[in-house]
Amino acid sequence: MSSELTHFDGAGNAVMVDVSAKDETERVAIAQGKVLMAPATMALIQSRGLKKGDVLAVAQLAGIMGAKRAPDLIPLCHPLALTSVKVELALDTENNAVLIEALCKLKGRTGVEMEALTAVSVAALTVYDMVKAVDKGLRITDIRLIHKSGGKSGTWEASP
Amino acid sequence: MSSELTHFDGAGNAVMVDVSAKDETERVAIAQGKVLMAPATMALIQSRGLKKGDVLAVAQLAGIMGAKRAPDLIPLCHPLALTSVKVELALDTENNAVLIEALCKLKGRTGVEMEALTAVSVAALTVYDMVKAVDKGLRITDIRLIHKSGGKSGTWEASP
Amino acid sequence: MSSELTHFDGAGNAVMVDVSAKDETERVAIAQGKVLMAPATMALIQSRGLKKGDVLAVAQLAGIMGAKRAPDLIPLCHPLALTSVKVELALDTENNAVLIEALCKLKGRTGVEMEALTAVSVAALTVYDMVKAVDKGLRITDIRLIHKSGGKSGTWEASP
Amino acid sequence: MSSELTHFDGAGNAVMVDVSAKDETERVAIAQGKVLMAPATMALIQSRGLKKGDVLAVAQLAGIMGAKRAPDLIPLCHPLALTSVKVELALDTENNAVLIEALCKLKGRTGVEMEALTAVSVAALTVYDMVKAVDKGLRITDIRLIHKSGGKSGTWEASP
Amino acid sequence: MSSELTHFDGAGNAVMVDVSAKDETERVAIAQGKVLMAPATMALIQSRGLKKGDVLAVAQLAGIMGAKRAPDLIPLCHPLALTSVKVELALDTENNAVLIEALCKLKGRTGVEMEALTAVSVAALTVYDMVKAVDKGLRITDIRLIHKSGGKSGTWEASP
Amino acid sequence: MSSELTHFDGAGNAVMVDVSAKDETERVAIAQGKVLMAPATMALIQSRGLKKGDVLAVAQLAGIMGAKRAPDLIPLCHPLALTSVKVELALDTENNAVLIEALCKLKGRTGVEMEALTAVSVAALTVYDMVKAVDKGLRITDIRLIHKSGGKSGTWEASP
Repeated sequence: MSSELTHFDGAGNAVMVDVSAKDETERVAIAQGKVLMAPATMALIQSRGLKKGDVLAVAQLAGIMGAKRAPDLIPLCHPLALTSVKVELALDTENNAVLIEALCKLKGRTGVEMEALTAVSVAALTVYDMVKAVDKGLRITDIRLIHKSGGKSGTWEASP
Repeated sequence: MSSELTHFDGAGNAVMVDVSAKDETERVAIAQGKVLMAPATMALIQSRGLKKGDVLAVAQLAGIMGAKRAPDLIPLCHPLALTSVKVELALDTENNAVLIEALCKLKGRTGVEMEALTAVSVAALTVYDMVKAVDKGLRITDIRLIHKSGGKSGTWEASP
Repeated sequence: MSSELTHFDGAGNAVMVDVSAKDETERVAIAQGKVLMAPATMALIQSRGLKKGDVLAVAQLAGIMGAKRAPDLIPLCHPLALTSVKVELALDTENNAVLIEALCKLKGRTGVEMEALTAVSVAALTVYDMVKAVDKGLRITDIRLIHKSGGKSGTWEASP
Repeated sequence: MSSELTHFDGAGNAVMVDVSAKDETERVAIAQGKVLMAPATMALIQSRGLKKGDVLAVAQLAGIMGAKRAPDLIPLCHPLALTSVKVELALDTENNAVLIEALCKLKGRTGVEMEALTAVSVAALTVYDMVKAVDKGLRITDIRLIHKSGGKSGTWEASP
Repeated sequence: MSSELTHFDGAGNAVMVDVSAKDETERVAIAQGKVLMAPATMALIQSRGLKKGDVLAVAQLAGIMGAKRAPDLIPLCHPLALTSVKVELALDTENNAVLIEALCKLKGRTGVEMEALTAVSVAALTVYDMVKAVDKGLRITDIRLIHKSGGKSGTWEASP
Repeated sequence: MSSELTHFDGAGNAVMVDVSAKDETERVAIAQGKVLMAPATMALIQSRGLKKGDVLAVAQLAGIMGAKRAPDLIPLCHPLALTSVKVELALDTENNAVLIEALCKLKGRTGVEMEALTAVSVAALTVYDMVKAVDKGLRITDIRLIHKSGGKSGTWEASP
């Protein structure tokens, strides 16, 4: 691993790193995160899961749309034409947590970690928004990369 | 606290809650979060802090701009004319963490929690983006509301 | 009704009409539209309506988000802080149509017709997107205003 | 034609369909639609057509810009780098209709129907916006695909 | 005039200045700018001005839409609900220049200079875009504020 | 050089020019501009340059983000996946000017002049925004292309 930050040039200017010379390969990234809540809040989300008006379905869609907005939000992020986005949410009732996982794919010149992490973040914020009226102690936590493949650096998996 | 989710109507449709009848009051929200990293990554950020090309300064600005994008990202969030946004980042070298705090204000009909939480999330993603080339084990964590005032429900502070 | 187009000045320049002098009143607009399809497509949507992965739920959310984007899309439309958005979709199985209705509200200086009509249009496009792989003969039709209240011109209802 | 909706996975989650494995081919889509109005409204638009301040020219430009916003509006739509957008509007004075046609092109992995349909929809909403002060009975109607080529499924033409 | 930059707090953090305590007054700003070009380019624009497909009409509309995007582009700019935007372009054939003037209005808590200046900039970029194929020596110049009123500081006019 | 404007078709409709048949080559554009100010304003910016809270650093980042928004702002501009963006600002204390230079790169079918010029424009507007409270006589000036390479027309350099 390099010991320098690639997002600054020699003069200290922030830059959108030049990826023109990189190969177009298939790039995949998977990120995860969770929203912790009170048991009563978890029960409320769970009860809705069986009807229309599902909290998880709204957050899931927001996550997909969020992946597309990553270059608008993150200053030095390249604009990319994502070829696939999947977001899944599940209830971990034992730990009163909503679990979120996002996968992004690209045939392109740069990785899609930030897109997957943005998808998780926006899905988490959307869960928060929908239940904040009943629970102010919500906490978005453990947003991290768990898989990355494609490009020069090859495949990387988070340790469990 | 209510025992129903306000973002769904009786038929189970997701709705942008009607706030037309609410008073225009001064609303404030403060949110926090952090990015955990390896000691070497922390040292690298710290070394740059003394020059131009500061990771924290880039993330700080991204956080402010992120607050303005909350209604574009979060489906049921009201569009708002924020009157103030402040974002601060600091290094917690003991815990190898970048600490992020955002404050949003509005003279308006609805709270600004989501704007403050979005500011923190986007600042955290930006820190992540700038150091991801040297540290794949980064973790965005503990994003939560710590203060809310204004509106019918009055002032709320997170327990420490 | 005036016999001149308000969106052009005397010299023929398109303008965003000056509403500074108008009163802030509660403004409501309701718009409708529909998507016509083949009977087999209707059956497919209907069969999904009972599970997660509901076409109508995705389109409903897209409609709400679309209402917020109206001033980005329509050149002479004022930016507005909508106070309420509701979008409903229903199946008219007899006519093989998805029916869409959107309601927007604002405490403000100008009407919200365009926001309601944009919500309907975006919901309709989203229905189209989700079923286009099985039906190329889809048709979005009859998008129109059905109710408008607030402001100087008072309440207006479409004839049935 | 498939009998399943491709925008949901087996578990019922909405997905942005994976197109990574598709070939980059030239894709073309043409869509049409119209805005119906009162005879007096049609006459007003027609009278302006000869001067600066042309309703159709404003809507035409809005349509082109709208095509570029399709992936922001339609949740499961891929972000695309369109290589051509053309939008044309014409007056059908006999039927008191503004006719709209949009053509989009892409060298890419997925079709551009939604971009062409969005261009037509935004152009139609813009016509509506500009004449709504003189005619509340406007109706946007018959938005549909008329041509599609490129990709695995080959060329398709709407029946007249 | 103050001798400090208001967009930084005491610790040197960039901030979106707190305007919550300011009065809602009518604020107006007018900005100007110009695009200089070769005589042949000027002649080409001029010749089109008499037909459909007018360079100035396209740029004029882009300017209006640009005013609405100012808070998306300028990091510390407040989101505002503009109540009026007017943009005018004229040919100064003697100096081979396109002249641009934009007026913005708001009933609000902060000035609209940046909106008017952004409108001029985007209109100028659009003129540039449309004629760049025939003239690479184009120059956008003299973008400045010429009038500002409303708010605590009262009315200001540029010296001619 | 052609003697026709490529952004209009034969019927006078504005078009996003068809670049489908162009080769994907590496395209580079460099643009420059400056912001003129009073000597006291220059001194104020200069004094901050040594601390956190640097005007130039904020504007530099806004410029990079601005490059990514060019197709949202300029109606007939193609959406592009930029592979590199660099923006530099420097103080010309002798002439009381902030100098701005932006470089954009793309592996693609069309040039990136507009992206580089938009980066310069947005950086200039951001400088303006941050010092406008102390200097109303600011002037954004001399925005122009200085280098362009790639594509059929080859390399072009502005005369000094």
